[in-house]
Amino acid sequence: MSKNEPNFQDLKTEYIIKQLGRTKNKKYEMYVVNRIINLIDDFDIKFVTQQYISRPERYALVDLYFPQFNICIEIDEPHHKNNVKKDEIRESDIINATGFDEPIHVDVDMNIDGINNQIAIIVQKVKNLKLVTKDFKAWDINKEFNPQTYIDLGFIDIKDNIAFHNISDACNCFGHNYKGYQRGGAKHAINKDILIWFPKLYENDDWNNNINSNENIITEKHKTDKTMKKVENFLVNEDKYPSQRIVFARVKDNLGNVLYRFRGMYKFDSINSSLDNGRIWNRINTRVDTVPASSKVHYSKDRNK
Amino acid sequence: MSKNEPNFQDLKTEYIIKQLGRTKNKKYEMYVVNRIINLIDDFDIKFVTQQYISRPERYALVDLYFPQFNICIEIDEPHHKNNVKKDEIRESDIINATGFDEPIHVDVDMNIDGINNQIAIIVQKVKNLKLVTKDFKAWDINKEFNPQTYIDLGFIDIKDNIAFHNISDACNCFGHNYKGYQRGGAKHAINKDILIWFPKLYENDDWNNNINSNENIITEKHKTDKTMKKVENFLVNEDKYPSQRIVFARVKDNLGNVLYRFRGMYKFDSINSSLDNGRIWNRINTRVDTVPASSKVHYSKDRNK
Repeated sequence: MSKNEPNFQDLKTEYIIKQLGRTKNKKYEMYVVNRIINLIDDFDIKFVTQQYISRPERYALVDLYFPQFNICIEIDEPHHKNNVKKDEIRESDIINATGFDEPIHVDVDMNIDGINNQIAIIVQKVKNLKLVTKDFKAWDINKEFNPQTYIDLGFIDIKDNIAFHNISDACNCFGHNYKGYQRGGAKHAINKDILIWFPKLYENDDWNNNINSNENIITEKHKTDKTMKKVENFLVNEDKYPSQRIVFARVKDNLGNVLYRFRGMYKFDSINSSLDNGRIWNRINTRVDTVPASSKVHYSKDRNK
Repeated sequence: MSKNEPNFQDLKTEYIIKQLGRTKNKKYEMYVVNRIINLIDDFDIKFVTQQYISRPERYALVDLYFPQFNICIEIDEPHHKNNVKKDEIRESDIINATGFDEPIHVDVDMNIDGINNQIAIIVQKVKNLKLVTKDFKAWDINKEFNPQTYIDLGFIDIKDNIAFHNISDACNCFGHNYKGYQRGGAKHAINKDILIWFPKLYENDDWNNNINSNENIITEKHKTDKTMKKVENFLVNEDKYPSQRIVFARVKDNLGNVLYRFRGMYKFDSINSSLDNGRIWNRINTRVDTVPASSKVHYSKDRNK
């Protein structure tokens, strides 16, 4: 713990304090976001501040996002440009917002009473959504990042916005019992034709990777001799490699923590892939079944530490 | 208006947004301060964030201050030193806290429910104080800085924490009708033995000024040949100068705005003053009578612009 870092009592406290106290881009943002959360006054409801979302053909940064209800709030501040360029958010965690309603806009170009009236309507709306959501599950920050939650559920679905802090936790949803596993991929414990994959889906030192904004096509292009050899070898010996990949993209969340965000099951596109085009993977499912852990714990050296 | 500066609809809106969105020193401060204000939910109650207060023999920076009830809140964060050195706050606006209760402390070394419980007690306390304060006056940011408020009242009292944005406004409490007056002093319109004075009560280019922490003694020492001459001339011709001064100290508030903060009526100490000791002024009153404006408007060149 650094000297200036308070010793938070639990994960939820740390999350709430950090989300509500982040560096701001907008003058009104701190007030509006804090007031909404304080007046909802219910920490069974999860929220995220400054969340990137991808909508078809567009990336946006929303000021407040409620994942349980898939609604988000944008503060319309004069002079503030809310659209963001893709290269600004290379490593960022992006929530796919296909199927979202339009964000709820807060117009701050009025006095404090006018702003507060809009906030009151949002607060009421969120409280009502909790009441009318039949399968509402209270936010449990510990359960959320625990693979056992998804093993018990039987599947991982993109609708549930799942991300893990560690590669091991993702692997352990598919029959493994790892501690400290740190490689870029692991085979599915039961189906050997499936790789659990943790790529950086943006240009990095070795690869020029890309995911389209609908998230249904991933392209991997080599950048070095070493990665060129890998692609060549793969293309020639295609049958020897798993043809499907469960993808957990390596991202950074809005607090700067590394996360592995579930993106779906992808299948190798052997027709369109080539050394020039790169390896191409097409999404074939947004939900995958989980597998209970085997009883044997696999320890693996943490290669990144 | 700068491109990034939102166009606030009114003074009160600007004040609230800016006070609640300031750069923070502490991790928990943003959460605790915003939650208290949002749950009090009553903008008839004035608040100030990060206010310097002077207590006998000590300066402190409190996280939240309610001037109508003279209570303040300190967030006890691990590793955070709340006492401040006097030289760090040279130009700052300092509220005299003689007669304050001890600040209410918020212990954040617990989980979010524990923090929220403490906040609930503070919120209830402030709401109760409004109910039991017989002469409670709703916060009116426009009236607050308007000299007519104090002319109507008949006096200016240090208990009311009065500060003006402009020198003219202070002068106009004492029989003047200035617009844009910018000098360091002005004679009282009726009593010619009184100067209305706007000193920097800290070391500056020309003077080494000082006010003690009880605020009852001001010392002015020369630093240049020019100011030495002024002091010499004053000491020799004492009778020709006003012997009393109504003091409005030039300070910067916590948002960086210049204010002239009322400190009381001071009288020249002719026994202890000397070229070596400097001019010494002793406070003789913490309340001064105001004087209705004369009908004639005095325009004065703004010398500082």
